[in-house]
Amino acid sequence: MTSRQITLYHAARSRSSGAVALLEALGADYRMQVLDLKAGANLAPAYLAINPMGKVPAIVHNGALVTEQVAIYLYLADLYPEAGLAPPIGDALRGPYLRWMAFYGACFEPAMIDRAMRRDPPPHAMSPYNDADTVLQVIEAQLAQGPYLLGEVMSAADVLWGNALAWTSAFGLVQPAPATAAYIERMSALTAFDRSRQIDAELIAA
Amino acid sequence: MTSRQITLYHAARSRSSGAVALLEALGADYRMQVLDLKAGANLAPAYLAINPMGKVPAIVHNGALVTEQVAIYLYLADLYPEAGLAPPIGDALRGPYLRWMAFYGACFEPAMIDRAMRRDPPPHAMSPYNDADTVLQVIEAQLAQGPYLLGEVMSAADVLWGNALAWTSAFGLVQPAPATAAYIERMSALTAFDRSRQIDAELIAA
Repeated sequence: MTSRQITLYHAARSRSSGAVALLEALGADYRMQVLDLKAGANLAPAYLAINPMGKVPAIVHNGALVTEQVAIYLYLADLYPEAGLAPPIGDALRGPYLRWMAFYGACFEPAMIDRAMRRDPPPHAMSPYNDADTVLQVIEAQLAQGPYLLGEVMSAADVLWGNALAWTSAFGLVQPAPATAAYIERMSALTAFDRSRQIDAELIAA
Repeated sequence: MTSRQITLYHAARSRSSGAVALLEALGADYRMQVLDLKAGANLAPAYLAINPMGKVPAIVHNGALVTEQVAIYLYLADLYPEAGLAPPIGDALRGPYLRWMAFYGACFEPAMIDRAMRRDPPPHAMSPYNDADTVLQVIEAQLAQGPYLLGEVMSAADVLWGNALAWTSAFGLVQPAPATAAYIERMSALTAFDRSRQIDAELIAA
């Protein structure tokens, strides 16, 4: 069996903090390469050679580079199946799991950017992501059906969404409806997020 | 073994035309539910009950709904492994495959929306997707290394990207650089895209 050790390119209190929480939730074997975003390390040639989009997280496993949060979460959860955070291929929840993962990247993030920039959403006929209100209503309706996006089963999608909803709420971009607010609290209380916050606090103190 | 029959919610000459091409490339067992976008069928309550985002494609398999192109492509290619369009979990190309899939939804589509709307890209520190020029340069650099996104191996990611690049080029949103232009031509020549175009032409003529 080849090594399952992951190298994570990480910056404290950034999108990659959610990836740290996922690695902790998976009990994964990982080491961090820490970037100082304030010093522009993500836009320095050394990092652009790794991820030309100049953002974290990025991971390397057995020499293979994976970028983009959705890809990284899918990859890691499949790599550590014993943690039970990825419905396996053939499971009835695999399709919904992929749906909520892809929905995050394709809809939530760009809709949040429009909201943060106070821009009008694109015309419906053109847009793949609609507007922030619709995206948040879809998530609220889903979370009203159970404690997790897949109902009774927690998955890596909840780590992704739990982190993102907590972060966008803290910045005032999201005013969470009831089921979403309860979900943010439930996810935030996970030991894995405690660990991620602790790691970031240590990095910032250092 | 449960049925592998897929129901595809489709509209002629839309994003779902690429999903038709993928189903053809996979040799999949599928049937279509055709929506008339001009008549607003995608925004009618009957369809919003299926996909509240009001867009195609969406698929149903064994009662499970999957929306979002990236999720649909990943799901279908894993469902028909004998077609060889998805590097399996554990394969060295699985991570890069997920990367280019996720990159499509998280970066390409929102960057194209900004370009179509002649909006400035978001500030780098905030944006998950940068700007259209950077996205297209990343793809060009990747395609300069081999005939497909994964090098010598064609995958479902190429069906997604081949369709999207052809469509955005036809609309003048993308002025393809050399490797990208050759790729659009190579992908467009696939029998699966011929079938998809033929199906759409028949739907429009009907």
